[in-house]
This record gives sequence, structure tokens and C-alpha cells, in this order.
Amino acid sequence: MLKLKLAAFVWLAGLAIGTAYAQECSDKNWKACKGKPWVIGNSMDTPIGDKWWPNKLWGKDDQAGSTNWYTKPEVVQRALAEAKTGKVYRLGRQYTSTMPTFGDRKFVLRIPGGPTGGPFGANILMYNDEFVATEIGQVGTQFDGLAHIGIAVNGAADKNEIRYYNGVTQLEMEGSTGMKKLGIEHLHPITARGILIDVAALKGVDAMEAGYEITLADVNAALDKQGMKDFKFMPGDGVFFRTGWGKHWIKDNAKYNAGEPGIGMEVAKWLSDVVQAGVFGADTWATEVIPNKEPGCAFCIHSHMLTRHGIVNQENMDLDGLAADKAYRFLYVYSPVPIAGATGSPGAPLAIR
Amino acid sequence: MLKLKLAAFVWLAGLAIGTAYAQECSDKNWKACKGKPWVIGNSMDTPIGDKWWPNKLWGKDDQAGSTNWYTKPEVVQRALAEAKTGKVYRLGRQYTSTMPTFGDRKFVLRIPGGPTGGPFGANILMYNDEFVATEIGQVGTQFDGLAHIGIAVNGAADKNEIRYYNGVTQLEMEGSTGMKKLGIEHLHPITARGILIDVAALKGVDAMEAGYEITLADVNAALDKQGMKDFKFMPGDGVFFRTGWGKHWIKDNAKYNAGEPGIGMEVAKWLSDVVQAGVFGADTWATEVIPNKEPGCAFCIHSHMLTRHGIVNQENMDLDGLAADKAYRFLYVYSPVPIAGATGSPGAPLAIR
Amino acid sequence: MLKLKLAAFVWLAGLAIGTAYAQECSDKNWKACKGKPWVIGNSMDTPIGDKWWPNKLWGKDDQAGSTNWYTKPEVVQRALAEAKTGKVYRLGRQYTSTMPTFGDRKFVLRIPGGPTGGPFGANILMYNDEFVATEIGQVGTQFDGLAHIGIAVNGAADKNEIRYYNGVTQLEMEGSTGMKKLGIEHLHPITARGILIDVAALKGVDAMEAGYEITLADVNAALDKQGMKDFKFMPGDGVFFRTGWGKHWIKDNAKYNAGEPGIGMEVAKWLSDVVQAGVFGADTWATEVIPNKEPGCAFCIHSHMLTRHGIVNQENMDLDGLAADKAYRFLYVYSPVPIAGATGSPGAPLAIR
Amino acid sequence: MLKLKLAAFVWLAGLAIGTAYAQECSDKNWKACKGKPWVIGNSMDTPIGDKWWPNKLWGKDDQAGSTNWYTKPEVVQRALAEAKTGKVYRLGRQYTSTMPTFGDRKFVLRIPGGPTGGPFGANILMYNDEFVATEIGQVGTQFDGLAHIGIAVNGAADKNEIRYYNGVTQLEMEGSTGMKKLGIEHLHPITARGILIDVAALKGVDAMEAGYEITLADVNAALDKQGMKDFKFMPGDGVFFRTGWGKHWIKDNAKYNAGEPGIGMEVAKWLSDVVQAGVFGADTWATEVIPNKEPGCAFCIHSHMLTRHGIVNQENMDLDGLAADKAYRFLYVYSPVPIAGATGSPGAPLAIR
Repeated sequence: MLKLKLAAFVWLAGLAIGTAYAQECSDKNWKACKGKPWVIGNSMDTPIGDKWWPNKLWGKDDQAGSTNWYTKPEVVQRALAEAKTGKVYRLGRQYTSTMPTFGDRKFVLRIPGGPTGGPFGANILMYNDEFVATEIGQVGTQFDGLAHIGIAVNGAADKNEIRYYNGVTQLEMEGSTGMKKLGIEHLHPITARGILIDVAALKGVDAMEAGYEITLADVNAALDKQGMKDFKFMPGDGVFFRTGWGKHWIKDNAKYNAGEPGIGMEVAKWLSDVVQAGVFGADTWATEVIPNKEPGCAFCIHSHMLTRHGIVNQENMDLDGLAADKAYRFLYVYSPVPIAGATGSPGAPLAIR
Repeated sequence: MLKLKLAAFVWLAGLAIGTAYAQECSDKNWKACKGKPWVIGNSMDTPIGDKWWPNKLWGKDDQAGSTNWYTKPEVVQRALAEAKTGKVYRLGRQYTSTMPTFGDRKFVLRIPGGPTGGPFGANILMYNDEFVATEIGQVGTQFDGLAHIGIAVNGAADKNEIRYYNGVTQLEMEGSTGMKKLGIEHLHPITARGILIDVAALKGVDAMEAGYEITLADVNAALDKQGMKDFKFMPGDGVFFRTGWGKHWIKDNAKYNAGEPGIGMEVAKWLSDVVQAGVFGADTWATEVIPNKEPGCAFCIHSHMLTRHGIVNQENMDLDGLAADKAYRFLYVYSPVPIAGATGSPGAPLAIR
Repeated sequence: MLKLKLAAFVWLAGLAIGTAYAQECSDKNWKACKGKPWVIGNSMDTPIGDKWWPNKLWGKDDQAGSTNWYTKPEVVQRALAEAKTGKVYRLGRQYTSTMPTFGDRKFVLRIPGGPTGGPFGANILMYNDEFVATEIGQVGTQFDGLAHIGIAVNGAADKNEIRYYNGVTQLEMEGSTGMKKLGIEHLHPITARGILIDVAALKGVDAMEAGYEITLADVNAALDKQGMKDFKFMPGDGVFFRTGWGKHWIKDNAKYNAGEPGIGMEVAKWLSDVVQAGVFGADTWATEVIPNKEPGCAFCIHSHMLTRHGIVNQENMDLDGLAADKAYRFLYVYSPVPIAGATGSPGAPLAIR
Repeated sequence: MLKLKLAAFVWLAGLAIGTAYAQECSDKNWKACKGKPWVIGNSMDTPIGDKWWPNKLWGKDDQAGSTNWYTKPEVVQRALAEAKTGKVYRLGRQYTSTMPTFGDRKFVLRIPGGPTGGPFGANILMYNDEFVATEIGQVGTQFDGLAHIGIAVNGAADKNEIRYYNGVTQLEMEGSTGMKKLGIEHLHPITARGILIDVAALKGVDAMEAGYEITLADVNAALDKQGMKDFKFMPGDGVFFRTGWGKHWIKDNAKYNAGEPGIGMEVAKWLSDVVQAGVFGADTWATEVIPNKEPGCAFCIHSHMLTRHGIVNQENMDLDGLAADKAYRFLYVYSPVPIAGATGSPGAPLAIR
């Protein structure tokens, strides 16, 4: 744990140091970042470009983002149409104290007592519970909601102007016992048409390398290989990228956490602007390439997808079962645990064919 | 909270006192309970009757119980066939610190920092997590796995002979950091044909009374009223009972916790022996009638369903949306959060029509 | 719990509403508060008056505040001189899940397993631990450190200018896994000459009423009654006020939390300016009178003592044993638990005579 | 963390394997252990020898063990007589997430919000709390109470006969929300005459080696070197051993946890039978030598001192300040945090000279 945490720190510190000395396009001088891939628009109102609020698709008071797609019957019906054979895949991993976690996050589980309670009645019943202490929505197979990622639009020294999806500010949202806005409970359950893009298979490797950015050409080549050359993506689709990175899960946590292959801004923009995805994800801890080849970008795909567009993100997936069966299209079902005021959610999404 | 806890204590203490003074059929003299509804069989090997292990349906080493049904394609296909309109219902409630909890269970959520982390990069990203400390699988909309309920088969004084599903003993199973056997991670995701039995509607009430036992006659009358007179239940079906008890949720936690309407042994045996249900549940905290008219029975439907039969139980559901739409048949999807060694799981099940 | 929390909310809400409608001296118009008891000085740089940093006694980089007195041998020797008879008093209460807590704070304790671990060796050793999840330094007999209380010096909307002891800002100090400055680990252990001022005995009551402000005249009359008319207070002394409020502890938590008798600004200024106390405390949850007769003051004694002067505060003490023995002078020993980055500390202080 | 945990597991597994294959004196055949150092007496009623209950010093219902000494004024006065110069030493370490912990124990601290609460009043007060989730009494500078260590007197397979201090059984004591007997709240505050035995200084090393057993000859030689040749120990004394092992704290947690120098049964019997110590401790995580040269002994000094004699144990102390000042005699003060039902306590003991 110590080693992997150090690895993550070195990487983050590297970003910080790298930007501190830069004359242009740094956190100290972000207006000079105009034209960078994560800067959308021209006015540079913020470190990620033009103001992103009110949201164009869902309106100024929306708190559900891309999950609004799943209130539309035709989107759900399109998803249901993929389920035919009755085979179910669990796309999440087990939660254990040994799993890799980001930064200081912890997963602690204790069974109170042995057993926890009883005896009750002439049937002499005993019962057990489990007590957890953890960053519940941000460990293991994790799901990023809309209170998770924000941007300090005036720079890091100004806590009054941190903005989230739909322009919600830190001050409007924050609460020490739960977020007052954008909590996970505002999201709709996800019943999407799911598409697996098996980039690891395209590349013919067990696991791709950290720092590899999946391109749109990769996506198209993978679809071609999967017999989906003419597949037409539709709004609300769930798009999932398999990199093979899950191979290092628990087996080498330091490596797992130190970086990852993933998508960059090219594919992110395709997801947000062309596909209009309802959810995206991968078998990695951030879905996006780390480190990004742009040194100033720290999780800038997160900024683009979650903060700017409100498109939710599923991380640390287990996509190996689908890949083994060449199951590239499926009914994808995920019901975020509606913890009031939470930023994320645990739980294993399902693919049903 | 104090008041409601006291209410629950009084009720449990009542059971204890009631049985302590009983000359026959008490926890001290359970062999005299022969013939009681919760005593299955004739040999009285245990307080719930004949030995229940090895499990007849799933074999001696099985740890998945009734969720094994969902590995059968025909069961899943039967479920999928119910989903046509594309309307999705969330059958779970929000998790809040104000919700009623059983006994000493707590739900505590804290947002670390404001924000939790950052700034990162020239995009000046900030992030938030949520930290929870709670009996995660046994609060709110909760799901009972197979390590949750056991029976002290030699009486409460003998900790060496507490038995769970498939005869697993406390000693084989227990672990202070997670159960070594029967953990929730062994269960298969649930994709059932779901049937709502709206008993509250049958009775023409907002909410039924605590202590009312739903009979098989009630079930048949409700089905009849719902236009399902000839409905043929099949193995693996999910059967859910609406009592209206959820009306008291948060609004009157003391009342909510002090008892509930629910099924008794008559309906439980129908579920286990006739339907061969894959999952059952209700809009109450235990699904079964409390208090039971049999004073010696403390959660004896739990003993019967979970310990003897391995049939999983979904509690504290929100069934009002289905009832409002008279949506009595649906695709039911629930993916237990695979927390290694846990006894239960959080999360909102879905109904899709 | 619900009721007492509501009571506390009503009281806090009352403050908020009271100030919101006020034309003068409110949180919206704090410059109009000049002359109010909690406004020290004339320049109104902040809602509590003149700038309080750098600290005049301990210098600009100090993080130990009034506990610096206990690095002075003569202060410790003066304290030691009070211990003669060898009788020890525990001045703290037991920590239980039933104790009253402020706001949303919780105290949760679970014993993992039964036992937690073992067996080990041919001696067949078994062991037990305890797992707690709690606001550890701010529940039960609690101790306020210097990161606990700050002032929004530009008003509540400006998170960038919240100032603590010695002018430390929120931004300099905060960290989601522990405070970067002013953490409890910077304090020195307290070995003070302790003085009990038994105001309840002076008034001839079991317990004083909530809202009663202890005056300097009360203090002097109590000292007189205690045979300490000519007692000369010295810098570093620990001064403790007994009100009898502890009578409601656990027995009536709603009442306990809804208010309390305690000191106001008159006695607070005497403690800070005349006595130069090293620590102060009481058998109440805040040591200060609540509600304060000044509607604009919310814990303004906290602001004065902790934020402006860095004088630490011991709350929820059990002073009944000392009172029963008329033990008014003693060696007071308290070693804050050095939890890195914490704002407070648990633990029972001792009086030794 | 992973590495150190593995190290600890290897060591514990070694014990288990070592004993599993032994023909004599193992956990499977403990009656053959007669004559082993940890087996006291001849009747072998239990794996540690003769029955140890009722306790000879403190009687059959006692729950305070060796802390009863501190209710005797002459013991406290003897302690107070050591404090003259007014210098105070903190004998505990800071609690951090980086400190070494035994087995699966965790220390997690989060600051809720930024700040946690406020604004209140026209003084615009803000406040911060800290939320911890941890084995509070068994991490960092930790203190073992009487519910911590028990013996499976009929062997590990019989959970009904695990016995603790004064013969209390697991069944009598255990509770999932706190121990019903022997909880830390039953202990009296400790105000002992403290004696430091600086064995590291005697040996002329920074840190002694893991596995080195401190002998009575070492103790006497150290006392001689410290100018205490004729020092007469008295009942209730606190005896503390400095090994220098603290040098590895945080710097090399794997090494720190993998073993330690410490006392064996020879010195343990001297403490319990000759000195009649009130408390003992060291700058190590268990005070006793690990691994013990007797392979069947797993923490058998813990069994002897805590279970048989009820003598409390202070671990992970910081004794370097005392050693640097050659401060070998002092007033030792430690007030266990009275957490109802806890097995241990956090907090930094103090030495005052």
C-alpha cells in the first residue's frame, strides 16, 4: 500500500511540479491553455474553456445529466432488444481490503460480534451484519456521479468559484454530511444499449500499456474487427473500453495505480458530441489515459465528460467475461445506489444478452 | 431514535420474557416446539426441525442458494419477456441518516474536505468523495444474503453449533474482517420475472396494520383482483408483497420499526415449496409479519426462507410506483454489491416493463 | 435523538432567522456590531474586531496556544504542589452510543468478531479489538483544539478568508485527511493548577438553568464561599465551572443539548486578560451560556477564547466528585491524544489532590 | 502495508504450522505443555496452567485488575514524590495513517467538510470536526485492557470456553456493540511511580534486535548502570523497558511489525510476583520478545500478565526523551479513555519529574 501510494503521489506531484515551472498553460496561467485539447470553445471563461452552463441538453436546473436518456422509453427499448439469450455477466469486481485504491481512500469491513445478534425466539435465531468504513462510491468498481468532479474556474486559490456540472458551485453544493446538490440520488437508473470496444483484442495483447491513448482510429478498427463496421451509435448508448489493465488488479496494485491506458480528448469528444453517450467506462480506474501526453491535463477527460457534459463514468469494470464470449452488444443495467448526497456509487453493473 | 430503539427493545424483550417463562416451546425447551409452524419435519434435530443440509436443490457445497436460478437461461428469458414498454421503476429508497434502522445499526456519511482533493493540472480539477460508516447491507433498502441468518441448533449457550444455510457452522464461516463462507459475493445477479402482490390495494387501505399476517387466501384474492387469476408461478420468480407500510418510513420511525404486516409460515411454505421463488420481498423491514401470532417465533420466516431454503430476501422496498401503474408483472433486476464476506447488500432493485 | 436534534436545529435556526431580519449587527452586516461584547477593539477588521494575529503571547508561528504555559517548569511545579493526599478524580464521562452529541455527530463502536482474532500458539490465545467510527475529539468529554473554531472574516460567502488562531486561513490549514496546521498534535500536555468554581453550590441548586450567564460577581462569591477569597490566580491556571448541568446527561439528552448555563464575555475576558488561563472548562457541552442574551452571538466565547486567544476548552466534564469532596484546588492533568491533524481530543482529565 | 502485513502473516503462520506438526506441546495437544515457561502450576486446567480465577489480589468480581493499586493513597503519594523539576515528557507517538499496525487494523481519519459546519451568528463562526474509523485502542501508542486477551481453555474449537481475566467467559463478556464485562471503563486512572529500564543503553546500541529476550540479569545490570542498584520496587510501580525498537517506527514498518526485542517469562514473573507491577510497557508493539524462543508461545507474556494477573500493558511508547535526559524515575500518569465496552485505549501517557 505504501509503495503504491507513493507511486501515485510521485505521479501527481510530477504534474504539479511540471505545471509550476511552466511559463505557459499551467494552473497559474491557465488562460494560456487556449487551444489545448481539453479547452472547449474560445472564450476561456474557465480552465476548461467556455462556460458549460446551463447544460444544453438537459436545461439549467438539471441534476441527472446523461442518465436522463433512460427516462425515454425508446432508449430503454433499444437496450432491451439486445437481451435474447438469457446469459448474464457481472461487470464488477469483488470489494476487498486488498484492492487498489486511489490516494488515501480505504476500504475497511468488520463483522460486529460472532454472531452480531440474537438469540431470538424458540427458533433461536442468530444474525450477522457487516460494518464498513470506506469511500463507498469511489473504491472498487466505482461510478462517478456529478458531484465528484469540479473545476476551480478562477484558479486553485479561489474556493468560492469551484464549479461542477450545470455550473453548480462548491458553496451551493457542499455539506459535511452529504452534498446538497448533484448527489447520486438525482440520477436515473441506467438501462442502456451497451457496446464493448475490445481494444486489447485489437492490439493482440493481454494488457495495453499505461500511457497509451486509444484513438478514434482504434475504436473504428476494433468495431470493424468485431463485425460492427456499420454499427450506428445512438444517444444514450453505453460505451465500454477493454484494455486488459484489470490483469494487474490486486496482483500488482502499485502498477495498477501508477497509470493506465485509456481514451483521450479525441474519443471523449466523439462520445459527448457524436454518440451522445449515456455512460462510458473501462477496466481501469479512470477510463482515461494516464499520464496524458499533454502534461497540463490531469484527468481532463473527467472534466470534459462529467463537469462539462454530465456524462457518468463507470470505472474498474471487469469486462473479461464479455470479451471471452465476444459479446459486444448487450443490455447494460446499472442502478446507482441512491445514497443521498453521495458523489459516487458502488455496485456491479450487469450485461445481459 | 431513542424512542424507536426503545420500542424495538420492548418488542424483542417481550419475546425473550415471553419465552423465558413458558413451560413449553421456548428457547430453553425447543424440543417441545414440535408441530409449531416453523418446525419443519418430525425429528427435531434443531429448533427449526429436521436437518436442512445438504440442500436438496443445489447440493452440499452450494453457497449461492436461490440465486442459482439465474444461471439458467430459460429463467432469465422468462424474465426478459416481461419488459416491453421501456419504463423503469426504482424499487429502492434513498439512504439517509434519518431512515429507520434495526437495533443499533447506524448510517453515517461524511464528505471529506471541501473539496476532498485537488487541485490537479492546468484544468485545475477538484474532486469529492464520500466516506460512510455503516452496516452497509443491513440498512435502508437491504438485501439478506446467506450469512445473515443462522440457528443455534443446540440452544443459545452453545456457540459451537450455530448453523447457517447448507449447514455451514459459525466456526467455519466467521471472520472479523469478512465471512469465510456464504458471503454475498457468492450470489449470482438476479434477473427474475417479478410479480407484485398488492395486498394493501386488496384490503383497500393506505397501509395495513402491524401484526397482520398475509394469508394464501389474500394472495389468491389479490392475484384475482389484479387480473392474474390463472397466473402460473414458475421456479425462480421474484414475489413481492405491498403492504403500504412504507408510508411510515422516516415520517414515524418508531412505528415503522415496532412491527409490520407481512407473510407468515403459510405463505412462506408456498414460496419455498410451491413457487420455488428466487427472491421475495416487501415494503417492510423484514417481509414477515411482526409480531407473529406464535409468540415463540422470532423472525421464523427468515429461518425458513434463508437458513433452511437459501431463498434471498429484499427488504424496505419502494413498491408504490408499480402499484400506482398497476404494474404487476415485470423484469426484476438486482445485482448484489459483491462485497467479499458481507452478509447483505445495499442498492435499489429495478423493475422494467 | 430525533427530538434532541430538532431541538438543536430550532435553536440554531433561531439564531439564523434572528440575524437575517436584523437591520444591524447581523452576519450580513457585521460591521454594525461594533461595541458588542464579542467585538474586541475598534477597527472592526473582522466580525470579532481587531485582527488577532500574530498572537501577542506566543508569536506569529505558534500552534500550541495556551498549552505553552506547561513548558514552563514553574507553572508545572505550582500545579504539582496541589497534589498531596493521593486521591485521584476522573473528570470525564464514559463514551457510549447513548450520550448526547451536537448536531450530526455520531459515536459508533463495534467489536469485530467474537473474538476478533486467534487462536495463536499452544497457549491458544484469542484477542479482541474495538472499532469506532466517530467524531472522536468532539463527542463525550471533549477537548477543543485550535483548528476547531474559526471566523469567516469577510462574511460567510467568502471561504477564502476563514481565519483561525494566529490568523491561519482555512486554505492553509485544511486537508481532507487531517489539518495541515493547528492540529491537536501541536499542543503540549496540560499539567495545570486546577481551580473548581462551584456555581451550582453557590446558587444552592442541583442544576442551574439554561441561558443563565455566570457573572464575575458569581465567580467571586463562589470563591468566597469556598474559602478562597484571597486566592490569587496565576497564568496557566485551569479554571473549571460547575453548573450541575451534567444531571441531564443521557437522562434527558434533548434538554441537555438545547441550551446550557455558562460563562459570558465578562468572565471570558477575565480568563483571557486577567487570569491568563491555560485551560477552561465546565460540566456542559460548550462551557459558555446558551442561548446568549446577545442574539447575534453564536458561541462567541468560543471565538474569543480559542480563535482570538488560543485558550483551549474542556467540555462535558464530570465535576461532581470534586464538588462532593469540596476539592476546589488540585493538580489537573490532561494529555490530548496526539492524533495528527485532529481538531479535538477525547479522554478523561484527572484531578489529583 | 501489503509487505508488512505479509511479514506478520508469515510469522503467525509459522507459529501455526510449527505447532500443527508438533507431536507434543501444540495447540492440539496442550496438556503436553506442562513445564513450559508459560504454564503456571501443575494441574494444567488450561493451556496456561492452573485456573487463574478468582484473582487472588483483587477478588472474584473484580474488573479493574492492577489499576486497583491506584485507589490506594500511599501508592499515588509514592508516585507524586517523584515529580519535582516540573518537566513533562509525552510518552506517546502521534497517530497517523502511516503508522505500523498489527494484522488488519486500520487508522482512517477524515475531516468532514471544509469547514465542517457554520456559519453561526454575527460573529460568523465556522467549525471543524474530525471523523475517525479505527481500532481505536489497538493502534499507535496503545493500551491493553482486560477484555483484550483470553485463552481458549478447551482448545480453539470450543468457543464456549474462552476465558479472560478473573475467569470471565467469552459468552458472558461479548457484545457486538461493546463488551459487557471487563471494558476499559472499569479501570482506574493510573498514577504510578514510573521506572525506566534502558536496556538499549545497557547494550550500547541504538536498537536491540528482534527476538532478543531481556533477562532479569539485563534488568539488574541496567539498574546498576542507572545508579539504581539498591532501588526497591514496590507494588503498583510502572515498569517500562526501552529497546530502541521505536527507531523503525514508520521508517520501516515491515521490520517494525515482523518481530521485536522484549521481555520473556522470566521478567514477566518478576513483574507479576516480585514487583507486583501496576502497569508495564515498552517502545515496541507487544512489550514481549517476538519471536519467543519457545515456538509454542504466541504472546504468552500477554497471557501471563493480562489474562492470569490482570496487569495492564502500554505499547508503542516513545521513551527516547526520558532516555536522553537519563530520567529513570518519574511520576507516570495515564488516564485510559473510558470508552464503554472497549478492549484498549488510545492516548499518550505522561512522565513528570
